[in-house]
Amino acid sequence: MSKLNFSISLILFFLSSSLIVSAQNIPGNGRISIVIHGGAGTILRTNMTPEKEKAYKKVLEQALRVGYKTLEAGKSSEEAVVSAIIVMENSPMFNAGKGAVFTNSGTNELDASIMNGSDNTAGAVAGVKRIKNPILAAQMVKNKSAHVLLTGTGAEGFVLKNKMKLVEPSYFYTERRYRQLMNIQKKPTGQGKLLNKNNDYKFGTVGVVALDVNGDIAAGTSTGGMSNKRFGRVGDAPIIGAGTYADNMTCGVSATGHGEFFMRNLVAYDIAAMMKYKEISLAEAADEVVMKKLKRMGGGGGIVSLDAKGNISMTFNTPGMYRGYMNEKDEPYTFIYQVE
Amino acid sequence: MSKLNFSISLILFFLSSSLIVSAQNIPGNGRISIVIHGGAGTILRTNMTPEKEKAYKKVLEQALRVGYKTLEAGKSSEEAVVSAIIVMENSPMFNAGKGAVFTNSGTNELDASIMNGSDNTAGAVAGVKRIKNPILAAQMVKNKSAHVLLTGTGAEGFVLKNKMKLVEPSYFYTERRYRQLMNIQKKPTGQGKLLNKNNDYKFGTVGVVALDVNGDIAAGTSTGGMSNKRFGRVGDAPIIGAGTYADNMTCGVSATGHGEFFMRNLVAYDIAAMMKYKEISLAEAADEVVMKKLKRMGGGGGIVSLDAKGNISMTFNTPGMYRGYMNEKDEPYTFIYQVE
Repeated sequence: MSKLNFSISLILFFLSSSLIVSAQNIPGNGRISIVIHGGAGTILRTNMTPEKEKAYKKVLEQALRVGYKTLEAGKSSEEAVVSAIIVMENSPMFNAGKGAVFTNSGTNELDASIMNGSDNTAGAVAGVKRIKNPILAAQMVKNKSAHVLLTGTGAEGFVLKNKMKLVEPSYFYTERRYRQLMNIQKKPTGQGKLLNKNNDYKFGTVGVVALDVNGDIAAGTSTGGMSNKRFGRVGDAPIIGAGTYADNMTCGVSATGHGEFFMRNLVAYDIAAMMKYKEISLAEAADEVVMKKLKRMGGGGGIVSLDAKGNISMTFNTPGMYRGYMNEKDEPYTFIYQVE
Repeated sequence: MSKLNFSISLILFFLSSSLIVSAQNIPGNGRISIVIHGGAGTILRTNMTPEKEKAYKKVLEQALRVGYKTLEAGKSSEEAVVSAIIVMENSPMFNAGKGAVFTNSGTNELDASIMNGSDNTAGAVAGVKRIKNPILAAQMVKNKSAHVLLTGTGAEGFVLKNKMKLVEPSYFYTERRYRQLMNIQKKPTGQGKLLNKNNDYKFGTVGVVALDVNGDIAAGTSTGGMSNKRFGRVGDAPIIGAGTYADNMTCGVSATGHGEFFMRNLVAYDIAAMMKYKEISLAEAADEVVMKKLKRMGGGGGIVSLDAKGNISMTFNTPGMYRGYMNEKDEPYTFIYQVE
């Protein structure tokens, strides 16, 4: 083999192995389990510092431990999902809750959704500006209203009526996110162009899927949406079937990525539908949807998911996805890049 | 057989035949076709007058003719869907556009969505108050933005920027709808209770699915939502996969009914997913989703749909659904009740 051919083979080998590793499938142990993500995108080692890596992993671990502890206490997967998402919403690291990106007009507009796989009930909020933990609001819509999706000031009125305290919009101000907005707005690019650039401030949605001691699955997702978004744009995070889905009979899924592709492809539900109708495994279904369908269309992003046996899939078609899982006491595993 | 047994058999026969008739499946002729609905619910002959029936059917026929003419002229199914929905949006008879119901606070907030089955692109608006034809706004989002769903004043800003004229909110005032709101608000019932009552002013969403000369399928849905709705509630109509879905490889679907059940079940996409993954027919898939799944959960409503061969299904689990189809020149067929 010539030197050139050998080099090409080597490159191909690494390319293919990196593709394989970007679908991390953990066999289920049939016990309580939790899997989380903190967004997918062009997350490269070259743009990271060891300190930054550590800071991200710390929050992921904390969220896993809080969620796992909830499950260990015999509480429901819905409660575990909410408790773990709150940890990430309260951290300024992720694009959800406190760390939400800014809209084009300098506001923060947050979306979240939750679904319970035991009875397929669901709740979501979109475009809220004064709710500290949107995932709690989504859960409130699910459990205290006859609705699935409440939006804007209407959603805020609903949670207020149900005795949730609102925060000042200034709660969501972080210098880092504001600087990101200023940087985007300085560039002479249209929104369309921005969409095609994989900057780290674009993604960062958080999501959790959990399996509790009763075998019930729940999934939830929370986001600040797209940085510099305009026109009341709503992405996949608050859309049941696109960003979030849960059904005990198949799986729970939380998605993250270029929302519009996830909406048009019903990514979260499609994985469940493939398991149900084609009778394939979670890993196969996630691979089909994320690594084939979405990739073909140019829809960057990923999902975390688990089924009733605790089989876990963390599958993404981008260079990185903040992610982790925990299905044994004191053993949270967290990852950032494709190959670790 | 005793007299009693005979009577019971007779009743069972009529019950079962009425159930069969509520799934109207028309074999495809492989040519241009259009199918529409104007909402499903407790539409009973006893509450109707011949004049009212005639008035509803007149608009349905007009919408079918306009849509069919668009297809006949060789234009796309997307254009046919838009043209037919505009006819129904401009009529005060249906709960969409001009005839939209009022929210709890006396405003009109409209939702619409459209999807093109040739490339799975989609657009939607939710909670808009000043757009005369929300289906045109949904199409504009699809064709002129990088987004799928724009909401509220943001969506209005987007269409304005793209040179669509806005109307005064008072355009949507109709005495009939306002009286309905007053009647609902007089009653000492919570929103939860209202949801469980099948009043004719609850439903009335409109939707169209069309197949054009190129074999492309498109689907669209438009609604004023639930009468007396609060908290920025958004139903299934603007949600891709719930109220609207189209894919040339399977089918196009527009749904109408108790939105929350349609969202949790991803009704429109689920029918397509069953055809794709279980390899069953459109009629079988529609029956499975609307007459079994939804019915079991108590989710009242229906769908109109067609596949690439022009096979049409109009399936609903309520006493009536305003509906019709046209797949031959000068022959629009319209229906209201289960048994006609």
